[in-house]
Amino acid sequence: MQQLLYGVAYYDEYMPYERLDEDIRMMKEAGINLVRIAESTWSTHEPQNGVFDFTSVDRVLDAMHQAGIHVIVGTPTYAIPTWMVKEHPDVLAVTPNGPGRYGARQIMDITNPTYLFYAERIIRKLIGRVCKHPAVIGYQIDNETKHYHTSGPNVQQRFIKYVKERFGTVEELNKAFGLDYWSNRINSWEDFPSVVGTINGSLGAEFARFQRQLVTDFLAWQASIVNEYKRPDQFVTHNFDFGWRGHSHGVQPDVDHFAAAQAVDIAGADIYHPSQDKLTGKEISFCGDSTRSLKGTNYFVLETQAQAFPHWTPYPGQLRLQAFSHLASGANMVEYWHWHSIHNSIETYWKGLLSHDLGPNPTYEEAKTIGRDFAKLSDKLINLKKKNRAAVLVSNEALTSMQWFPLPGGNVSYNDVVRLMYDRLYEMNIGCDILYPQSDSFEQYDLIVVPALYAASDELLARLNEYVKNGGNIVYTFKSGFANEHIKVRSETQPAIIGDACGIQYSQFVEARDVTLKGDPFEVGAEHNNVNVWMELLVPTTAEVLAFYDHPHWGAYAAITENRYGQGTATYIGCLPSEQVIRKVLERACRTAGLWGVDQELQFPIIVKSGINEAGRTIRYYFNYSDEPVSFSYPHEDGVELLTEQLIRTNGQLSLERWGVAIIEADGE
Amino acid sequence: MQQLLYGVAYYDEYMPYERLDEDIRMMKEAGINLVRIAESTWSTHEPQNGVFDFTSVDRVLDAMHQAGIHVIVGTPTYAIPTWMVKEHPDVLAVTPNGPGRYGARQIMDITNPTYLFYAERIIRKLIGRVCKHPAVIGYQIDNETKHYHTSGPNVQQRFIKYVKERFGTVEELNKAFGLDYWSNRINSWEDFPSVVGTINGSLGAEFARFQRQLVTDFLAWQASIVNEYKRPDQFVTHNFDFGWRGHSHGVQPDVDHFAAAQAVDIAGADIYHPSQDKLTGKEISFCGDSTRSLKGTNYFVLETQAQAFPHWTPYPGQLRLQAFSHLASGANMVEYWHWHSIHNSIETYWKGLLSHDLGPNPTYEEAKTIGRDFAKLSDKLINLKKKNRAAVLVSNEALTSMQWFPLPGGNVSYNDVVRLMYDRLYEMNIGCDILYPQSDSFEQYDLIVVPALYAASDELLARLNEYVKNGGNIVYTFKSGFANEHIKVRSETQPAIIGDACGIQYSQFVEARDVTLKGDPFEVGAEHNNVNVWMELLVPTTAEVLAFYDHPHWGAYAAITENRYGQGTATYIGCLPSEQVIRKVLERACRTAGLWGVDQELQFPIIVKSGINEAGRTIRYYFNYSDEPVSFSYPHEDGVELLTEQLIRTNGQLSLERWGVAIIEADGE
Amino acid sequence: MQQLLYGVAYYDEYMPYERLDEDIRMMKEAGINLVRIAESTWSTHEPQNGVFDFTSVDRVLDAMHQAGIHVIVGTPTYAIPTWMVKEHPDVLAVTPNGPGRYGARQIMDITNPTYLFYAERIIRKLIGRVCKHPAVIGYQIDNETKHYHTSGPNVQQRFIKYVKERFGTVEELNKAFGLDYWSNRINSWEDFPSVVGTINGSLGAEFARFQRQLVTDFLAWQASIVNEYKRPDQFVTHNFDFGWRGHSHGVQPDVDHFAAAQAVDIAGADIYHPSQDKLTGKEISFCGDSTRSLKGTNYFVLETQAQAFPHWTPYPGQLRLQAFSHLASGANMVEYWHWHSIHNSIETYWKGLLSHDLGPNPTYEEAKTIGRDFAKLSDKLINLKKKNRAAVLVSNEALTSMQWFPLPGGNVSYNDVVRLMYDRLYEMNIGCDILYPQSDSFEQYDLIVVPALYAASDELLARLNEYVKNGGNIVYTFKSGFANEHIKVRSETQPAIIGDACGIQYSQFVEARDVTLKGDPFEVGAEHNNVNVWMELLVPTTAEVLAFYDHPHWGAYAAITENRYGQGTATYIGCLPSEQVIRKVLERACRTAGLWGVDQELQFPIIVKSGINEAGRTIRYYFNYSDEPVSFSYPHEDGVELLTEQLIRTNGQLSLERWGVAIIEADGE
Repeated sequence: MQQLLYGVAYYDEYMPYERLDEDIRMMKEAGINLVRIAESTWSTHEPQNGVFDFTSVDRVLDAMHQAGIHVIVGTPTYAIPTWMVKEHPDVLAVTPNGPGRYGARQIMDITNPTYLFYAERIIRKLIGRVCKHPAVIGYQIDNETKHYHTSGPNVQQRFIKYVKERFGTVEELNKAFGLDYWSNRINSWEDFPSVVGTINGSLGAEFARFQRQLVTDFLAWQASIVNEYKRPDQFVTHNFDFGWRGHSHGVQPDVDHFAAAQAVDIAGADIYHPSQDKLTGKEISFCGDSTRSLKGTNYFVLETQAQAFPHWTPYPGQLRLQAFSHLASGANMVEYWHWHSIHNSIETYWKGLLSHDLGPNPTYEEAKTIGRDFAKLSDKLINLKKKNRAAVLVSNEALTSMQWFPLPGGNVSYNDVVRLMYDRLYEMNIGCDILYPQSDSFEQYDLIVVPALYAASDELLARLNEYVKNGGNIVYTFKSGFANEHIKVRSETQPAIIGDACGIQYSQFVEARDVTLKGDPFEVGAEHNNVNVWMELLVPTTAEVLAFYDHPHWGAYAAITENRYGQGTATYIGCLPSEQVIRKVLERACRTAGLWGVDQELQFPIIVKSGINEAGRTIRYYFNYSDEPVSFSYPHEDGVELLTEQLIRTNGQLSLERWGVAIIEADGE
Repeated sequence: MQQLLYGVAYYDEYMPYERLDEDIRMMKEAGINLVRIAESTWSTHEPQNGVFDFTSVDRVLDAMHQAGIHVIVGTPTYAIPTWMVKEHPDVLAVTPNGPGRYGARQIMDITNPTYLFYAERIIRKLIGRVCKHPAVIGYQIDNETKHYHTSGPNVQQRFIKYVKERFGTVEELNKAFGLDYWSNRINSWEDFPSVVGTINGSLGAEFARFQRQLVTDFLAWQASIVNEYKRPDQFVTHNFDFGWRGHSHGVQPDVDHFAAAQAVDIAGADIYHPSQDKLTGKEISFCGDSTRSLKGTNYFVLETQAQAFPHWTPYPGQLRLQAFSHLASGANMVEYWHWHSIHNSIETYWKGLLSHDLGPNPTYEEAKTIGRDFAKLSDKLINLKKKNRAAVLVSNEALTSMQWFPLPGGNVSYNDVVRLMYDRLYEMNIGCDILYPQSDSFEQYDLIVVPALYAASDELLARLNEYVKNGGNIVYTFKSGFANEHIKVRSETQPAIIGDACGIQYSQFVEARDVTLKGDPFEVGAEHNNVNVWMELLVPTTAEVLAFYDHPHWGAYAAITENRYGQGTATYIGCLPSEQVIRKVLERACRTAGLWGVDQELQFPIIVKSGINEAGRTIRYYFNYSDEPVSFSYPHEDGVELLTEQLIRTNGQLSLERWGVAIIEADGE
Repeated sequence: MQQLLYGVAYYDEYMPYERLDEDIRMMKEAGINLVRIAESTWSTHEPQNGVFDFTSVDRVLDAMHQAGIHVIVGTPTYAIPTWMVKEHPDVLAVTPNGPGRYGARQIMDITNPTYLFYAERIIRKLIGRVCKHPAVIGYQIDNETKHYHTSGPNVQQRFIKYVKERFGTVEELNKAFGLDYWSNRINSWEDFPSVVGTINGSLGAEFARFQRQLVTDFLAWQASIVNEYKRPDQFVTHNFDFGWRGHSHGVQPDVDHFAAAQAVDIAGADIYHPSQDKLTGKEISFCGDSTRSLKGTNYFVLETQAQAFPHWTPYPGQLRLQAFSHLASGANMVEYWHWHSIHNSIETYWKGLLSHDLGPNPTYEEAKTIGRDFAKLSDKLINLKKKNRAAVLVSNEALTSMQWFPLPGGNVSYNDVVRLMYDRLYEMNIGCDILYPQSDSFEQYDLIVVPALYAASDELLARLNEYVKNGGNIVYTFKSGFANEHIKVRSETQPAIIGDACGIQYSQFVEARDVTLKGDPFEVGAEHNNVNVWMELLVPTTAEVLAFYDHPHWGAYAAITENRYGQGTATYIGCLPSEQVIRKVLERACRTAGLWGVDQELQFPIIVKSGINEAGRTIRYYFNYSDEPVSFSYPHEDGVELLTEQLIRTNGQLSLERWGVAIIEADGE
């Protein structure tokens, strides 16, 4: 990228009256230099089967070009027109809930050839038309693609072939998945039942993996079409979204981001997060780290919130804080979904930068200051290179396996455990990458944190042991190593394979009720010293016990252990303690790994993020994620605060307003 | 009406043994002078297709006539016989939940021609047979008719024609409903998808309006048939029911009462309400005012509770209090559902006046006193004329729109806002009418209260502005004016159109959390001064601010405003405050409108209702809705308490027992 | 039985690697002398239609025989193979939720002839093959059989014939079920609608009774086949399970245990119960008493928990306590489900005696001590004869009727009322039998407790009156007598029929809110003196009032009464008081019935159970169901504590560890 991009999704088609010139005028005033168009409006561009009308695309491209605003064109394939469903009802995905109903987006069967035929045609028509337009800098293929739980007979048919390919014989399959149980054996491929009703988690998880593969294939197929038209100066991207809990929350269960991202030139993400008093920057950081790690370089924030919901309307200052937080994680683009609030249909209350009155409002006014600063500082802030020494290993397989075998109570999911660990690192200003099972870069990290790696191959666990042996440091949580990649529980002593590195074993686990850690070993005080939900009854073999349970019957068992193994150290957390205890355990591991420095003396709500800019100088972002002003001593080399252009000296006092930002450029790392 | 009617629904068909003479004996003893029959028992009257058996009707009519008890005959069309469903399964309504199942009542497609054919036949057979019988004073068509969510292909087909009729072209439709969004455009009428899965609230709300029209049409069709047989001295009525929350609660979402009532001679209602310690009279008043306002005159309570559920079994005195409360709102009939408790099926625990043992019981004994007093006072209490100076404007469209776009949290519905306002007026003894968007009588009121008028036409909002300009007083709540009649959010500055009269504007709104009104402006104390759920960030243009928000970021915005506009005043409540604050705001508006008088010095639980009787004298009801005796000074002209026949002098002391009633007839208004 | 059986369910088919010899070695070490095999693995034994493979059966039988371990062979019919469903999808039960999906067990239509054909074939193949094997001591037919809500058209067709058989004419049917209501009449058998959507509880309950009959017939059919092969020294049993609330909780709604048990030689049960701090022994006792009462003699515990769920993992000592508790109720077998934890599929976390690592663990170690003690004491503890003087009457009909007409709030079910009464007797060490409506042994008891007998025939109520008249003592709760066996509410004065014996009547009932018993008549203190959910407004005719309600309006009515009737006494509890009040009322009734003795001076958590062993001596079990050691005076004849072989003298001190057991053999009763 040559320029920081500050953008909005723009829907000329949704406008209640002619607004294009006025919209562009207001965009320019706010420093908007990018719009994304066309990705939601297939029925406008192809009002009838084979009848095309790109009026709104053409006029927007021309007008944006004239105004010097870049355009990303989206393929409009995630929301299908009425005529298609009327002609070919079978384009709708059959799901475990039955046949589909027209209405919402993302309801089609992404493997249906009729759908694919029409999708390819509209892509070729649209991209063929716009690819030479000077305003177009790139393409977004589809939108937050997932598999939409497609599982009709045709999908089942393909799944059987996929399984046959992987296992060869029914005998291998029956053995791998334990299908003797409850008479579920498949003794002939012809007997393969629909997987929709299965109670076998191994089979169910294999189907989920297959469905994720469908997404990977679909995106690769779209990219291959768009690539035929793409100019050398253009890119293909996709807006991956995340596990959702009213906001972006964790690993996306339905997509293998790492595999799917192979098809695109630049990884992109949609990041939505709590706001107002609940704004912490955690989702911006987690989703940013995840997306940056897909290709190990800078990424796009293709969607994030402007005003959004009534409970997300930003406090003064928060829109700025958010924008620079994205940059600090390595984003080269911050794009709002969307420019204007929509006057009809289901996202009416998901407000854009403009309210429904389409005039200025306080959030828009704040955006103007961001646009100004992005333009001013683009050269210094773009293409930030980040080199983190810690990483968190996440896994679709582990996530799926814990959907099949949830923790007791059902309230703590895999992503909760991921975030329990990640968020503590964030609070301590430990910069992180995200690792995926396919990553081949374990060795470059001093610390790897492994939350609840319930399902993993022998090979992955052996690699983790090897990493420790060679001097790496790992912090595991409970459940790690328990099952293989087919979610078959291992019959070795638990935790299987990694027990070697951790120096522990256990044969029983219980729900934690009225349990604490004996003697408050981490000095977190009575209110934070309790254990909840889960506890493995650990017996150390070679490990040192960091904490025992305090319980009338299980008091002899270890809760948290640490083991020297080869040149490295493996910590194992066998239970669900409080955030405070997790933080202390991670701090200990960070210190062991040599990751503790001056930035760790600051803690959330003061967040520090850093990287190297194109000039080779260090950019350090300081964020105040709180409603109170803060002030602290700046510990690094003398630098310049770029927003105010003030010189900041080592050990000088740095003050941040509530929800404030400072950006210091300095020499050194 | 010549006589106050005190009645019961009577089901000879349900009796476990021959009881007719004994029932009539007990009815006479209780002063029952009316029964409603036949409306639930189609399968008894037509046991096989085309085979009729009106034995139970004939014998009941004869016996009642002999006993001097009037009869309303109901058409039995709301519960269909087994033979019909077996022969023609497609008479069952297809709903969003799929095809229907036989069992419950109100499960048919009210547009199905097979059903309509059989319904017409049984109506003609039954009404033709009974219409000359001297016992019959009138007819109830069907029972609590609604559309039962019928939405199968035939209904969809009619809906498309209805939409075509309203919008003319798909282009108009797409524009009005914003169907470009998510590729929902209908570019050809042939493409019109089933509305069942739609995510477009405009389309969904139009379908709801269409479904309400089906109900209006169905009732008009039934009335037209019955009218062919009706004697001049007979009437047609219908028992409208209300939005339900375990009891009658507010506006009925599925019926346009105002439109549907055009077909009947006398408006009727089914009114069910909490009891025991939760008896307040509010539902009796709200539903009574609603029904009276349909035709601007007296109405029937065709169903209300006798013993009903275990948690409704009335305390001693409550049955009397309820009966006279109905009269005080203008009812000419109080009819219990039902005479005897049923020994089988789903309403076994919805007990009638008699328990399952069919003998006397304490509630029946109390009914005897009511029958006695109704007979004694009939001439004085019948045909009470009420002239209220305040009104509450309600709207099916607003209700539907807030089902599509609910308030945050989903716990506060349109009807909750309606009742929040109405109930405060009730507590202050402000007599109310109910206005509907079709009402043409705005100008006759000094005060109109407008709760959450989310969806409304330009014309309606302009009429409301005009009303204020001409000297009227309005109190609006939040959300009013936000969208047009197609639930398209207006792109004018909000609150659109009415912002002129209210002298305010806003472009942002948020969820209210930990927010209060600055400085407790209404002096309600800390526990009642908070704001919840919703707050619009109001900026006054010409309005006076009655309350600001107390919030670290939104403190500069107004919460409640008042504006002089032309000759009148418009108050706007931009948030959801406590009942106490609402009461203070309404009290202020009442005083401005000149509605504050001596009756307002009394407050709930002492309720005063009044009207003019046929002799032109004022009847004033005093109710004690509490478990403690009360005593107060009677402020009006000297009068006679009709139950005790005591003279009550101005400023004399009036005492009411717990759950007690007094009725004073006096000169003057 | 010649020997106490200590067993496990064993699945060679599920093993992740060859383990048979090692498993047998570990079983022998734990004293396991019984395994149950084959009941879950049809698809292993018949991998394709008509292709049989009994390898795992043969090899396990041989190996067990060699090791001296007995085998029960289960018919594998409760979980069907994939090939059957692929060939004949209609073997899946159609239920109110629609057609079935393959995956889980217990999803077939137990009346489907295709299923029955294949089921009979596999039974004959399997049982014919194993019946002569010396290891086989008996057979379990099917597994926890229920009707799985089968209600498709074929079942409906049979139901109509069943109804025709019972009622003869539609007229009788309409009358019995009150089908005039809501036009539900069936005026011709051809019109009979599917019962799935019915709102008529009488019809619904009749269908439930019919479905239970299907279960009875199915088990009798299976037994008749197995009986053809059974050797004289072998038995047929079945593992009945119970109403489920996360554990065995009460009467099984879907099976008539009493009727179904006629088909088997020995009654068996699956008993699962809370553990750890929630272990009380109540479910062990209730389910044991229920199963023993089916045939009036000793029974099998065919399944109970070893480690099971994380929240059930037993504390040290609990596995022993549980095992001997089963024996104390008359069990001759304690069998764990299951030997080893399963590595795949839905019951992965329902752990067996072995953990997934298949090695020893603390629970397995404790099982070894049980095996040792069972072997040592088998002769003394086997075939314990119990003679209880109290009984609790339970009824499928009453349970179903209270599903149709639940108590207000929906939180208190029939089984809750059953357990409310039963558990208090348990806590007072009153040994109980369970009576069913078909039982003919009322007269042998001094006290019968009758919880919520909502639906009962005239004949049953008359028998209960007769029982009291002849000197028996009954404690009824509310709702008893209210409806007949068709759930038609009786039109006599309530409580109908039994009102004679109880000396009371009522015509009204209400929900209990803020109600207490006047003057705390049972001296339970304010916190336990309240009444909840339900109160009948009782008026005594001849009864003595034990408690009045304290309520501003219902204070004149009685809550609990006692009446002398003939030679006996009938107590009636007209409301839902606290456990403490129930206990006091039951204590009073026990004293009246002469059931109060030295064992009643001990109370829960000290539990005493006794019986006569084969030598004619009295065995008394003392259990400490608490986490604290207890000590008390032993009040009976001198005896020997069998586990320690210590002499215990009358009035000697007996000490029990936490969760401890003592077993004393002595003369006398």
